[in-house]
Amino acid sequence: MSFTGTLPGLTSEITDQFETALKQFVDSRDLPLYKMMSYHLGWVDQNGEPEASAPQDRTHGQLVLNVASAFGGSLEDAMPYAVAVELLHNFLLVHEDVQNANTERDQRPTIWWSWGPAQAINAGDGIHAMARVSVFEQLKRGDASPDPASISEALEALDNATLEICEGDYLDITYQERAAVSVNEIVAVARNHGSLFGVAAKLGGIAAGASAKQIEALNSFGSALGTAKNLNIDLKALWPSDGTERTEVQRGRLQSKKKSIAIAHAIENGSPTTRRRLGEIFMKRVLDPTDVDEVTGILAETESRRFSEAKIAELMNEAETALNQVGLSNSDNESLLSAAKIIVESE
Amino acid sequence: MSFTGTLPGLTSEITDQFETALKQFVDSRDLPLYKMMSYHLGWVDQNGEPEASAPQDRTHGQLVLNVASAFGGSLEDAMPYAVAVELLHNFLLVHEDVQNANTERDQRPTIWWSWGPAQAINAGDGIHAMARVSVFEQLKRGDASPDPASISEALEALDNATLEICEGDYLDITYQERAAVSVNEIVAVARNHGSLFGVAAKLGGIAAGASAKQIEALNSFGSALGTAKNLNIDLKALWPSDGTERTEVQRGRLQSKKKSIAIAHAIENGSPTTRRRLGEIFMKRVLDPTDVDEVTGILAETESRRFSEAKIAELMNEAETALNQVGLSNSDNESLLSAAKIIVESE
Repeated sequence: MSFTGTLPGLTSEITDQFETALKQFVDSRDLPLYKMMSYHLGWVDQNGEPEASAPQDRTHGQLVLNVASAFGGSLEDAMPYAVAVELLHNFLLVHEDVQNANTERDQRPTIWWSWGPAQAINAGDGIHAMARVSVFEQLKRGDASPDPASISEALEALDNATLEICEGDYLDITYQERAAVSVNEIVAVARNHGSLFGVAAKLGGIAAGASAKQIEALNSFGSALGTAKNLNIDLKALWPSDGTERTEVQRGRLQSKKKSIAIAHAIENGSPTTRRRLGEIFMKRVLDPTDVDEVTGILAETESRRFSEAKIAELMNEAETALNQVGLSNSDNESLLSAAKIIVESE
Repeated sequence: MSFTGTLPGLTSEITDQFETALKQFVDSRDLPLYKMMSYHLGWVDQNGEPEASAPQDRTHGQLVLNVASAFGGSLEDAMPYAVAVELLHNFLLVHEDVQNANTERDQRPTIWWSWGPAQAINAGDGIHAMARVSVFEQLKRGDASPDPASISEALEALDNATLEICEGDYLDITYQERAAVSVNEIVAVARNHGSLFGVAAKLGGIAAGASAKQIEALNSFGSALGTAKNLNIDLKALWPSDGTERTEVQRGRLQSKKKSIAIAHAIENGSPTTRRRLGEIFMKRVLDPTDVDEVTGILAETESRRFSEAKIAELMNEAETALNQVGLSNSDNESLLSAAKIIVESE
């Protein structure tokens, strides 16, 4: 299940403020392009009419606020950064939906499915630019603007995280067409994608005036938890929670042959027969549901799920060690760690 | 023909330096993602091996240098901005190739055609991020770094231009599916896309320390010439220069029913029979070459080409008026105007 609530360390008042800030920022531009963004973010229907759709996962933005608040930073200063990271995350989702041909996300038709791939690519590009414009525009409004150097640091961190994610995406897509993918390769890609939570934690620290050393440790904390989450997303696609069916996005990932740590483990450690069979399955252009069932059957034999879960636990230890270096109070540490666990466990 | 030479006001030494700066920046990251970018930019083949491909149009970056040099600004300071604008332009091309399903650009297979749409979307996103990273990274290296406020101004200008272009793209794509598109609507979209040359001229001014008023006038100059160029691109697709065939990109625009100012003029001013016939043609999902011939035949009857050329001349006057407000020397004014003419006339 995706997490649509309030992370520990924040109040529902704060998350409401965050949702309002996000919505006001997107609504501040009154053109059809932004209606498409509002649709994706769950506020309007395809005709641009207000719609109370199911709440969405906002953990990327919430982590920014969470970290800033652990430092006693002002939420007003952190809000534009939270909006920026949340939009960065959503630009990636809009493009992922085109790349994996997902017809639905959060039980609603995706942008590409409703408006076509050309509009979806364009909407994603727009959200990408909006992510940074939010930092410029909102910081201008506030009375207590951070200094230009820290704005610049935040923007640079956003762009570098985006590049790391693109570097990972390149590999991820390449691995779709390869059978021989190693555990190390999969973990490296998950680390690339983990930089999104890394930059979230980092921006919380920048907004709250943390030291360079603390910001570095926060980045490591966020990256490690983001890496764990990315590995876990694939496990959840393979083994949905009891009583739930796979979502469209989960099916999209499996059938387009995205490789998970569990699959890489079976490819590396399976018997020659197992490996040959996996190779045959992944030679198909697109997998069908029975192929996916056969893959999960094979992974049970190779104990690849247990191996993968151990790797995720290891990354959570890495996140905890990094967080301990930040030097927060015990209670702030605890609350950020519980937040991290919720993020990693949710889809 | 696309313009691959050196704009008036620059020397071939400077454009060589620019090409080197662009290449060094992309090459500074040694990962497969960047090889795909290098391929798109014409330096390597699909296997990442050096290839001396035909030179490409670099007028976006050159205009930055041109303006900076007219102000007597240091080329070193302007170079990262030139790299940024050139990359911004190229990120848009990579995504346009997916959106219009162009198989070839500059006589070479496009990224999406060679690596698939998922990789092309990702490569474009990466180039988009690189555009701004160049400003951060290269300015750090230089001795004479501009102040953080002007870096911030440049970055904000880049993001706002990108958003304007996305706003225009939204409409441009919508108009593909509509027959009733007005001249004003087409000119408005061309203005949106013109903001790319607007930001090029603006960044040249920022790099050279121009005043706020001058930067505003430079932006108007660049936007007007960019608007004229965008209108002209469509005319050139309709009526290729004597003795040349339509390129793949030109065919892609016409067959995907992108509307030009000439078509909008005929739709607004044609006889009822003409309008009905245009409506029938644009009801097709994709046009074939005989449809395109019929459209150009109709446009000859309605004198839509002459009308469009007059509009372009009007925009060039607008560019000239804006440039006169900058207060440069006569010779610098002349050389920027000749550069503008070359940009508008090339494809």
